[in-house]
Amino acid sequence: MAEPLTVDRPDDPRLSDYTGLTDVDLRRTREPAEGLFIAEGEKVIRRALRAGYRMRSMLLSAKWLEVMRDVIDASDAPVYAVTPELAERVTGYHVHRGALASMQRKPLPSAAGALGSARRVAVMESVNDHTNIGAVFRSAAALGMDAVLLSPDCADPLYRRSVKVSMGAVFAVPYARVETWPRDLEEVRAAGFRLLALTPDERAVPIDTAVPRDGTGAGTGARVALMLGAEGRGLSARALAAADEWVRIPMAHGVDSLNVGAAAAVAFYAVARGRDGEG
Amino acid sequence: MAEPLTVDRPDDPRLSDYTGLTDVDLRRTREPAEGLFIAEGEKVIRRALRAGYRMRSMLLSAKWLEVMRDVIDASDAPVYAVTPELAERVTGYHVHRGALASMQRKPLPSAAGALGSARRVAVMESVNDHTNIGAVFRSAAALGMDAVLLSPDCADPLYRRSVKVSMGAVFAVPYARVETWPRDLEEVRAAGFRLLALTPDERAVPIDTAVPRDGTGAGTGARVALMLGAEGRGLSARALAAADEWVRIPMAHGVDSLNVGAAAAVAFYAVARGRDGEG
Ligand SMILES: C[S@@+](CC[C@H](N)C(=O)[O-])C[C@H]1O[C@@H](n2cnc3c(N)ncnc32)[C@H](O)[C@@H]1O
Ligand SMILES: C[S@@+](CC[C@H](N)C(=O)[O-])C[C@H]1O[C@@H](n2cnc3c(N)ncnc32)[C@H](O)[C@@H]1O
Repeated sequence: MAEPLTVDRPDDPRLSDYTGLTDVDLRRTREPAEGLFIAEGEKVIRRALRAGYRMRSMLLSAKWLEVMRDVIDASDAPVYAVTPELAERVTGYHVHRGALASMQRKPLPSAAGALGSARRVAVMESVNDHTNIGAVFRSAAALGMDAVLLSPDCADPLYRRSVKVSMGAVFAVPYARVETWPRDLEEVRAAGFRLLALTPDERAVPIDTAVPRDGTGAGTGARVALMLGAEGRGLSARALAAADEWVRIPMAHGVDSLNVGAAAAVAFYAVARGRDGEG
Repeated sequence: MAEPLTVDRPDDPRLSDYTGLTDVDLRRTREPAEGLFIAEGEKVIRRALRAGYRMRSMLLSAKWLEVMRDVIDASDAPVYAVTPELAERVTGYHVHRGALASMQRKPLPSAAGALGSARRVAVMESVNDHTNIGAVFRSAAALGMDAVLLSPDCADPLYRRSVKVSMGAVFAVPYARVETWPRDLEEVRAAGFRLLALTPDERAVPIDTAVPRDGTGAGTGARVALMLGAEGRGLSARALAAADEWVRIPMAHGVDSLNVGAAAAVAFYAVARGRDGEG
């Protein structure tokens, strides 16, 4: 266990993992390069530890010491006690969740590694919005998806906002980056997955037809990969061409599209093979 | 049609509809009190007009004049041309969508009025997050819900962020506030709706059982109202007690709950009676 250390200067080098947290551009480069990510708030910190991430250090205000006592006792990482004002000066915002932890990233598995024995996977292309990435992970975990694959230009699931929006689900669902996009989807198909591209395009098959509830059809039996695109652009022509089938969620009121998080939730629900107690 | 007026002082009273747009507390009080709301960006402005809202005025930078020319020509509202710097000083942020319009609110219908001949409605309790409200409206429109009812403490669907996240769907789906909550749900039931409370509670019936796809059961035939709660607290005990049935979306991986937007998307999809071309 570590005794909390009181720190009172914003430029104390021991706090450098936490500097400028509101500067998205800075953190987006720094965090992967330095192999760290930030877990914010008691719940998320506990979930990260439970998922086997190692804590590098913790930053908290005195009144959170009791709440986090067991976590602190179980770890060798240094714990820095600071005033809320100092926390704000270092991070750039008012840390109302009280505790921050800097966590060590783990090496990402290869795509093949993440697929493992997965039967249902989500594949995202160019989803570079941290909120959307987090939302899709939360639904993926809740609705029993086994893994997530990301195109090289998707946002970082371990960025603070993604982690928060996902409620820690980014720790629960294995994920990997596809190296050559979309070419390496060929490997996913070779592993026995049917690649279903989710698209509002009218030429696509309605999802109820592609994945019927009676247990026949594309989504059941076979391994299935659900491809999702970004707000605005949607799946690229190349990604659409790489799919086995185009699938759409029928829409009303002349609406153009669902938000990717909503489309993901519907699609994950539609391919969920069974129900409770399975996950 | 109106000739654009060039304005160059941030305290020009003609710009007062647009002052302090980033001050959520201020705007939350001011906008309903003054009967206005702000539509941001070309797409949203056009959708608001198409839905019959009257424009009070428009604020844009010169390079957007051409894009908005037809809108300007078709309206009597004053149009203020400003530099991007002035727009930022007035509103408090960099208006990268180029054009803002102040729109006149319409009187909200009563709950009975919004229900009209609706068959499927969403009911939200205490959803006070503008992003979540917007997301639920977008899915409600896309997935063919006919109306939305809000408890008195739900956030304003016409707040700038709700409108934006909804992609203008708040204009497309009729909505109303329930006056006495949850007592007035009795009127919804009296109108022939089955009240289904969406909850992750284990005692709830799985949604596939409550709303089977074969056209039997609670969700079909009868009118159906889907009740959704807020992040954190979920539906209140009183709201749960007012429901006819509790319904849950089965979950995996030990996840506590879906985000309300994701749960809404799944539930709307599950009760969609028919498909394309219906809305
Ligand atoms: C906001 S949409 C992108 C819209 C884009 N304009 C397009 O045409 O694809 C983001 C992603 O959500 C999924 N999506 C949205 N609405 C859908 C629908 N009705 N059916 C299937 N997928 C949908 C698709 O994967 C899409 O790439
Ligand atoms: C984030 S959840 C609230 C969680 C809250 N702790 C609870 O127990 O209700 C927000 C809303 O989404 C809906 N919801 C979330 N997950 C659900 C599930 N698995 N089944 C049914 N509804 C769900 C419910 O209406 C809930 O009130």
